[in-house]
Amino acid sequence: MTDTERAGSSIRRTRRRAAPGAPPGTLIADPASPRPRIRAIAYGEASAESIDIETPEALDGVVGRRPVTWIDVQGLGDTGVLTALGRLFNLHMLALEDVVNVHQRPKVEEYGDHLFVCTRMPQTKDGRHLVPLKTEQVSIFLGRDFILTFQERPGDCFDSVRRRITENRGRIRKSGPDYLLYALLDAVTDAFFPVLEQDGERLETLEAEAMEDAGDDLNARIHRLKRELLAVRRCVWPQREMLNVLIRDDSALVSDQTRVFLRDCFDHTIQLMDLLETYREVASDLVDIHLSTVSKRLNEVMMVLTIIATIFMPLTVITGIYGMNFDADASPWNMPELRWAYGYPFALGLMLAVAGGMLLWFRRRGWLGRLGRHRRRRGGGRAAE
Amino acid sequence: MTDTERAGSSIRRTRRRAAPGAPPGTLIADPASPRPRIRAIAYGEASAESIDIETPEALDGVVGRRPVTWIDVQGLGDTGVLTALGRLFNLHMLALEDVVNVHQRPKVEEYGDHLFVCTRMPQTKDGRHLVPLKTEQVSIFLGRDFILTFQERPGDCFDSVRRRITENRGRIRKSGPDYLLYALLDAVTDAFFPVLEQDGERLETLEAEAMEDAGDDLNARIHRLKRELLAVRRCVWPQREMLNVLIRDDSALVSDQTRVFLRDCFDHTIQLMDLLETYREVASDLVDIHLSTVSKRLNEVMMVLTIIATIFMPLTVITGIYGMNFDADASPWNMPELRWAYGYPFALGLMLAVAGGMLLWFRRRGWLGRLGRHRRRRGGGRAAE
Amino acid sequence: MTDTERAGSSIRRTRRRAAPGAPPGTLIADPASPRPRIRAIAYGEASAESIDIETPEALDGVVGRRPVTWIDVQGLGDTGVLTALGRLFNLHMLALEDVVNVHQRPKVEEYGDHLFVCTRMPQTKDGRHLVPLKTEQVSIFLGRDFILTFQERPGDCFDSVRRRITENRGRIRKSGPDYLLYALLDAVTDAFFPVLEQDGERLETLEAEAMEDAGDDLNARIHRLKRELLAVRRCVWPQREMLNVLIRDDSALVSDQTRVFLRDCFDHTIQLMDLLETYREVASDLVDIHLSTVSKRLNEVMMVLTIIATIFMPLTVITGIYGMNFDADASPWNMPELRWAYGYPFALGLMLAVAGGMLLWFRRRGWLGRLGRHRRRRGGGRAAE
Amino acid sequence: MTDTERAGSSIRRTRRRAAPGAPPGTLIADPASPRPRIRAIAYGEASAESIDIETPEALDGVVGRRPVTWIDVQGLGDTGVLTALGRLFNLHMLALEDVVNVHQRPKVEEYGDHLFVCTRMPQTKDGRHLVPLKTEQVSIFLGRDFILTFQERPGDCFDSVRRRITENRGRIRKSGPDYLLYALLDAVTDAFFPVLEQDGERLETLEAEAMEDAGDDLNARIHRLKRELLAVRRCVWPQREMLNVLIRDDSALVSDQTRVFLRDCFDHTIQLMDLLETYREVASDLVDIHLSTVSKRLNEVMMVLTIIATIFMPLTVITGIYGMNFDADASPWNMPELRWAYGYPFALGLMLAVAGGMLLWFRRRGWLGRLGRHRRRRGGGRAAE
Amino acid sequence: MTDTERAGSSIRRTRRRAAPGAPPGTLIADPASPRPRIRAIAYGEASAESIDIETPEALDGVVGRRPVTWIDVQGLGDTGVLTALGRLFNLHMLALEDVVNVHQRPKVEEYGDHLFVCTRMPQTKDGRHLVPLKTEQVSIFLGRDFILTFQERPGDCFDSVRRRITENRGRIRKSGPDYLLYALLDAVTDAFFPVLEQDGERLETLEAEAMEDAGDDLNARIHRLKRELLAVRRCVWPQREMLNVLIRDDSALVSDQTRVFLRDCFDHTIQLMDLLETYREVASDLVDIHLSTVSKRLNEVMMVLTIIATIFMPLTVITGIYGMNFDADASPWNMPELRWAYGYPFALGLMLAVAGGMLLWFRRRGWLGRLGRHRRRRGGGRAAE
Repeated sequence: MTDTERAGSSIRRTRRRAAPGAPPGTLIADPASPRPRIRAIAYGEASAESIDIETPEALDGVVGRRPVTWIDVQGLGDTGVLTALGRLFNLHMLALEDVVNVHQRPKVEEYGDHLFVCTRMPQTKDGRHLVPLKTEQVSIFLGRDFILTFQERPGDCFDSVRRRITENRGRIRKSGPDYLLYALLDAVTDAFFPVLEQDGERLETLEAEAMEDAGDDLNARIHRLKRELLAVRRCVWPQREMLNVLIRDDSALVSDQTRVFLRDCFDHTIQLMDLLETYREVASDLVDIHLSTVSKRLNEVMMVLTIIATIFMPLTVITGIYGMNFDADASPWNMPELRWAYGYPFALGLMLAVAGGMLLWFRRRGWLGRLGRHRRRRGGGRAAE
Repeated sequence: MTDTERAGSSIRRTRRRAAPGAPPGTLIADPASPRPRIRAIAYGEASAESIDIETPEALDGVVGRRPVTWIDVQGLGDTGVLTALGRLFNLHMLALEDVVNVHQRPKVEEYGDHLFVCTRMPQTKDGRHLVPLKTEQVSIFLGRDFILTFQERPGDCFDSVRRRITENRGRIRKSGPDYLLYALLDAVTDAFFPVLEQDGERLETLEAEAMEDAGDDLNARIHRLKRELLAVRRCVWPQREMLNVLIRDDSALVSDQTRVFLRDCFDHTIQLMDLLETYREVASDLVDIHLSTVSKRLNEVMMVLTIIATIFMPLTVITGIYGMNFDADASPWNMPELRWAYGYPFALGLMLAVAGGMLLWFRRRGWLGRLGRHRRRRGGGRAAE
Repeated sequence: MTDTERAGSSIRRTRRRAAPGAPPGTLIADPASPRPRIRAIAYGEASAESIDIETPEALDGVVGRRPVTWIDVQGLGDTGVLTALGRLFNLHMLALEDVVNVHQRPKVEEYGDHLFVCTRMPQTKDGRHLVPLKTEQVSIFLGRDFILTFQERPGDCFDSVRRRITENRGRIRKSGPDYLLYALLDAVTDAFFPVLEQDGERLETLEAEAMEDAGDDLNARIHRLKRELLAVRRCVWPQREMLNVLIRDDSALVSDQTRVFLRDCFDHTIQLMDLLETYREVASDLVDIHLSTVSKRLNEVMMVLTIIATIFMPLTVITGIYGMNFDADASPWNMPELRWAYGYPFALGLMLAVAGGMLLWFRRRGWLGRLGRHRRRRGGGRAAE
Repeated sequence: MTDTERAGSSIRRTRRRAAPGAPPGTLIADPASPRPRIRAIAYGEASAESIDIETPEALDGVVGRRPVTWIDVQGLGDTGVLTALGRLFNLHMLALEDVVNVHQRPKVEEYGDHLFVCTRMPQTKDGRHLVPLKTEQVSIFLGRDFILTFQERPGDCFDSVRRRITENRGRIRKSGPDYLLYALLDAVTDAFFPVLEQDGERLETLEAEAMEDAGDDLNARIHRLKRELLAVRRCVWPQREMLNVLIRDDSALVSDQTRVFLRDCFDHTIQLMDLLETYREVASDLVDIHLSTVSKRLNEVMMVLTIIATIFMPLTVITGIYGMNFDADASPWNMPELRWAYGYPFALGLMLAVAGGMLLWFRRRGWLGRLGRHRRRRGGGRAAE
Repeated sequence: MTDTERAGSSIRRTRRRAAPGAPPGTLIADPASPRPRIRAIAYGEASAESIDIETPEALDGVVGRRPVTWIDVQGLGDTGVLTALGRLFNLHMLALEDVVNVHQRPKVEEYGDHLFVCTRMPQTKDGRHLVPLKTEQVSIFLGRDFILTFQERPGDCFDSVRRRITENRGRIRKSGPDYLLYALLDAVTDAFFPVLEQDGERLETLEAEAMEDAGDDLNARIHRLKRELLAVRRCVWPQREMLNVLIRDDSALVSDQTRVFLRDCFDHTIQLMDLLETYREVASDLVDIHLSTVSKRLNEVMMVLTIIATIFMPLTVITGIYGMNFDADASPWNMPELRWAYGYPFALGLMLAVAGGMLLWFRRRGWLGRLGRHRRRRGGGRAAE
């Protein structure tokens, strides 16, 4: 399992790329990461163009020509490219280190003339997110006239943003890079809604099964769902904090108008958290419900055993008694029943009476009804299928 | 199941109407939502009139003629109407988007010359709330001389407010639109009291049953109640926050006099939360109680089994012994009992002694008393029916 | 069950008197509430007199003649009296509504020239509080020269305060109405100590029983105690908040000297909370302990069953073998034991050996010791009775 | 059980000495409390002397002669002495009431020219703290040139402080009464470390036993430890708050230099809390572990029963079949086996085969291995004893 | 077990070196601690030298010659050395006491001209941390031109820092002692990542086993892991607080540039906490999962028992009936079956029919399928090994 493959696991996301104790700012690329592919989209109210960039140096003439330039780097496999971009845009080395160490929590940091924003989006494949969920770090630098984004690998949830730029929909072409930052963060936040929707469907399935104790692996599946919710929570909770900082702080890079939109995005993260916490509470309840269903099933099994044993054990003793070999010839006290004319029917009748009495006793205790009701319910369920 | 029908489910309320990534402010109506029906109530201290509005444009001459105009829109099925209203009252497009995306948490937002308040009320049918609970979003815009409300569908809990306006009861006709806002929020808050009252009754029923382990589906019913309480909590908790913001903030649109009333309404949400948390704690305890009742029942079943087995197994061995076929003719050591004159009574007596001894032992351990006591209690319960 | 009778139930205290949606300030008396009985105590440093008041109008000449007048209204069954008092003392209609809706949480509200304080005291009967606990709302208005108290029904915990006034003990006659407010709140707070003391005794009894699993209804009793603690908590926790507000706020109606005494009263509520939380933690532990005791009891029952079955089942097989009817005449291989001289003693000896071996095996596993030890402990307990 | 004896119980510490409703400041001595014994230690940088005081009036000439006088009162049985001291040092009557009502939480209160500090120390006997833990209230008044301490009974943890004064060790003789206050609070805080150390040892013992399920009373012992930790927590947590107030507040009675030392003492309470919370978490885990061990033991018992029953029940049926009395003479179909030459060996062989097959089946399920492994582990444990 | 050996245990870290009540600042060395070994590294931008120091006095000429001097003391066995260093650097005696009492929580304290920082690093052996985790206290004094560090024993995680100084990598040689403080704290923080990584691996192993119930000691192992996580938490949580204080406080000893780096280090502790809390939640879930797996296993065992008993008990009764000795000669009613020509086959057929009917009944209840499915799953697991 390569380092990259297990990035999505909510457990074991601990390894930092650089050797512990290396000087801060040391960039060590994950060898499994794809080589960077750079694309710039430069736009203003009037026009927009998309340019594939071969080397960082080629950016020189691109940035600044139009009001906003969005440089999107996909793949972190070449530290040389990163270092060059860092020099070009005057990025702080600690921020660059965070770009490469792709297990950051969402956060925002201000470095003089640029903001560094870190967020996480669900990885997708053919437009669908992976199961179990894997997330990918998106690092964003916001400057006066540029946005610089770093993604771990090709493929993202920003296509709609690109379309809004190229097709000039909404206000994006009329606004500055801070609005683009909002658009990106909003796209990332919205990308978690389908994830939660699917988790909600899994939860409902598990809920129905936990009451019926259908699957042997129910425990494992509830546990996996809880871990996935934990993983989403670890992305969304700091995302909320990060947006809050963006809204409250008075960085000159973010206009008041954009803050109104960020507040809307912040509301979406609260909705996500709200759903998440509900799901987590319901999932925790499921464990209890399942345990209780298992206990009830055990009760039912034991009732069957007890009823059977209680009915047949006395019968065994009766048959045993009349199977004893006492010599009826030795005295009139020895097993006179054996020679009665109706001895055998009497014995069978005694056994029936004992069995019937026991059944009556169980019925008064309500045990038979319970088993029968249960069977009917399950039978009914089957009939209804 | 249409999108609308499942709106009340506390799970899966995740889908946003607009495609993820659409520019903010894009209004996409839920096709299942009814077409808007608009009614305006214009009133002042002297008079009040209620006008059915066909098109948003017809509002032009209505708003402003009297001190307060309440425009109530029921149904969100036509985005054209919403856009027209938005233009007419100069509403912010993000607020309008929240009107259409009907899964908002209660909140308040200030947009220059108007306040946007979002709240949720229990859906009712024939004046009774639905079981399980479904809630409906009510979006309220407060301006200087108008209140604009949007409801998801016809039918609400505002009839008493309308009567107070038309019949000029209380101070509502003498006050401004901020007092009307309070009256609406108070009506929404009060509408949750019957919901909780019913939940409290369900809880008391479950409480009695959990101690008796009557129903097979008790677990499922406790779980459903807990989920309903969770759903109420998701409405009331942010409602409390929202009222707090209205009271503390110094918006010029809300007068100090009205703040006193809002504080009273805030108190009611605290009462609701207080009840809710009590119910939630009791419901959580019920799960434990039920599990413990099931365990005790298992104990009782096992005691029956053990008593039966312990009494009859030794008897079986005794009958087995005297059923053995050793040849008494072969030696005087071989089963001389079989030829004793009182061999059979002796064997029966031995069996009685063993059974009696076992019963005595169980009695000293207190097992018999426990079973008997339990039976009496249940029997008494039945006799009392 | 009348509305009044169930007021003490910690569940279902939800109904508000007025119909939902009635204009605020609408007073609707609980028909089950007794008619108001009004008594005024007017006092100053020099003298004190107690006057029974027939109609609110009769108060006119009473208030203001002495430095402090305490008007005590017991019973809320007549809204006319309340309205008259409200007019006389210029009370806010929202506060009056809270007086009638007797399910308020303790709170304090400032209304211009008077303070409105709401608190709850345990209902008593013949000087003892009820089991289960019921609480009664006490509404207090503090003005410059008067205290106006409303109680739900006759009978309270203020007799000692009245004696201190009439017998001129302590500093109460030398102080203003704010000190009287403190004296009343202190009496209410102190009234909860006996309640908690009794709960502590119940808890200790339950603790001893949970380890022994004596009662069948232990679960139900622990649950009832937890609910009572929850009910006390719902009174004491907001009482603490309310006192804190009284101490911190700078209302001119409360002197600094009285604040020192309120701080002492505040300390008492902290002591109450401290005890409550301890009790709640211990009660929660009891549920676990009880469940564990039940599980251990089950283990013991199963051990008895297993030991019995394991000893007697092999014996049954042995007797069964020698009860088979193979024809010893047919071949020397067929059951030669039956004709041995010592066949029967051999068979009995074999059975003894098997039983003994099994017992030895159980003893080495420690099962016998565990059962025996347990019996002795219980036997000792019985002997000591 | 006298009131005094049960003072250490963490449950039922509710009774206040004065009758509820008595005027505040009423001093009612616990009749079981020993009579006060007063000792004064007066010291300055140059010298120190220790004086036994017979009556409070004798203090008149003592206080003020040297820079610091520490009056230590042990025993609260005489309210006359307390009242006299209160008058002499001008103490607030509410503080004096707290001195007598010995169930105060640690706290600090400022009364004009003196500070009132309340703390709790573990009661000791022969220099060792009691099991279960009992605590004793220490009330301290700090004035400009005196410290006045009240203890419930003779015997305390201040001997080392007294030695430091008389032997002039450390800076205590060079400092004011605020440093003495610190020294006393530090001694009280440090006195809890041995208590926790012993609790830690109990916890480790319980931890080992919970995994082995050795003792029948394990539940009760875990519960007692949890209650003791709760009791310690109720002393240490408010102690921490109290020290924090002393450090932060700007009382002129406490010098900045002493605040540095109080900060150190505050650190010790944080260490205590840290340990306490760790112990509490571990103790909570123990309950789960024990429950799980009990469940596993049950599984093992049931496996033994099931294996035995599954092997011997079929054997019983086989012996039963060949014990039937069908008349072989009546037809060749009737039990021809009985007359086979090898019928009996065949039957025995059949039984061996069935038993062997069952054992094989259990072995493939892994049940035998589990039982055997367990036995070995326990056997090894016994051998090691 | 020496005091030192048990230092790593998360339980029982309570003993303070000095006798309770000793004057503060008393230094009592742990006799088990190694004797101090002192090494100084003096460096500036131009050069760096490492000097072994024999006696504290030898430091006189070393400190101050170069911009930064790092004096590293490994081993606390000689209080004379510590006192001498304390005098030399003018250290506060309370800080020195904390150096010797090696169970401090991470913290920072300001003492006039120097900062005292306390932190904990995992003990390592041959570059690997110990299992179970033991931590060692590192005490750091930061002055204007020196850093003074005290470690409990030789061996630390600072080798990379030393190399960065001697090999002049990064900016360390160009910066002041505050940057060195950062480098040391960063090294300590990073040293916990491998610890957590290993804990994550243990957690994944336990997770797989808990679903299979493989190990008998699973409970114990989960418990040990939880205790280790608790131990890490007790180091990292206050570390986070300490770094926060360093960042926020405005001590002149820490430059703004270094604060940026400390913020990065603070981020790492947040990542640690984030992982820790995730691990703790997952570990708590494991206990539930394991309990549930055990319950399911019990169900399975009981099903086997019940199926066996239910099938074979009726058979035993049938064989018993035809083993009775009623005298067929006495009347035609007495066991005529015995003389039927097909009596024996009829009896065997009856037994087959009963057994088959029972099996069918169990199959319809789904019990057989459950057992079979389970067996297959386990069998498949074995085959795959």
